[in-house]
Amino acid sequence: MRTITTIGFDADDTLWHNEVHFRLTESRFAELLADFAEKDHLTERLLEAERRNVLHYGYGIKGFTLSMIETAIEVTDGQAPSCVISEILAAGRELLRHPVETFPGVAETLETLKPDYRLVVITKGDLFDQERKLAASGIDHLFDGVEIVSDKKSDTYARIFSHYGEGPAHAMMVGNSLRSDILPALEAGAWSVFIPHELTWALEHADEPAGHDRFRKVETIAQVPELLRTQD
Amino acid sequence: MRTITTIGFDADDTLWHNEVHFRLTESRFAELLADFAEKDHLTERLLEAERRNVLHYGYGIKGFTLSMIETAIEVTDGQAPSCVISEILAAGRELLRHPVETFPGVAETLETLKPDYRLVVITKGDLFDQERKLAASGIDHLFDGVEIVSDKKSDTYARIFSHYGEGPAHAMMVGNSLRSDILPALEAGAWSVFIPHELTWALEHADEPAGHDRFRKVETIAQVPELLRTQD
Repeated sequence: MRTITTIGFDADDTLWHNEVHFRLTESRFAELLADFAEKDHLTERLLEAERRNVLHYGYGIKGFTLSMIETAIEVTDGQAPSCVISEILAAGRELLRHPVETFPGVAETLETLKPDYRLVVITKGDLFDQERKLAASGIDHLFDGVEIVSDKKSDTYARIFSHYGEGPAHAMMVGNSLRSDILPALEAGAWSVFIPHELTWALEHADEPAGHDRFRKVETIAQVPELLRTQD
Repeated sequence: MRTITTIGFDADDTLWHNEVHFRLTESRFAELLADFAEKDHLTERLLEAERRNVLHYGYGIKGFTLSMIETAIEVTDGQAPSCVISEILAAGRELLRHPVETFPGVAETLETLKPDYRLVVITKGDLFDQERKLAASGIDHLFDGVEIVSDKKSDTYARIFSHYGEGPAHAMMVGNSLRSDILPALEAGAWSVFIPHELTWALEHADEPAGHDRFRKVETIAQVPELLRTQD
């Protein structure tokens, strides 16, 4: 892959743990409403609310908190006690403060790649929260650029890879979301490296583009430098 | 001001109406809680919540909605009925859909300036919402760049004016917030043009830097081209 000059990295669940914090918050949410609904039913209703609300709220923790409150009122037929709503607000704020824990090998991999490639974080979600996490990650100095976007479409990648590098044909996107990282980057003309994560938000699922000549799949981020060396 | 090559424009209440929509939502919020608290008291408590929460949520409508819910629970001592919380959620979503109405003279002013200056929108708030408003404004094609930032500090202006132009010394910031537009841009070394707006959020207040040699004040955006011509 000698043609690659620029590498984009998704952040949540590619560089650091994220979904696990949402799942813990969802468990807390289910506990709070245990008298009113089963956990599976709650999860389903919450996901419906998130799917509906992403059009209004975009991605991120604040919209997730608002969707939890809406779901709590719905599943209790308007009987959710105020203390439950307060607890949901507190859980949302807690989520906004969660510690940032990078995956093993992330810093070393970025340091290995840095001399030879332009490295860019490309992430969606709440602007304020993503900036907080990047600052807390301890790896922000390893990136040439940070792009926090409202959504990840093929023209998002085309724009960013043209801005930081020589366009999508000379760029590679690394991420855990087939829907947001892999497919739109391929559509833009870039290479894509899929690193599956055991926890992935239902709204990020999509089919693997198996057989696509610019699609690769690895188990950990530490395999990326080797992939770049051996795929000439 | 021949040295000026780049002009930054705040968006909310500089290019289009914004605060008026928040005030209408606050009135709706006060109606919903009329049985529990006086409007003045509610406004004060809501502002306290916003001030506290801006550290967690940043700026924007989603954080404002979460602060309204928190305040509703607080002022009712936990007795806020679920239907009130639902109405607050609906009011927040309504706010996220409000029509975008530019001020008189905005489009003409930008068209006058465009041939001679690089024009950049510099705004804070929810990424997703600010993008929506810009797309709905009908004036997005007049800008060379759009910067949606989590906060407006002097280094924000230094970075943006260096990226789009020749640095702050050759740039001017136009806005209605002394705290976010005028003072930090002056601190960065840029010129600042204050256009007061009758409705300004309490958290944006600051003292006018009267007498500062790079500070100007006009009544409407339509006066900006004349100001640039006559202040050589």
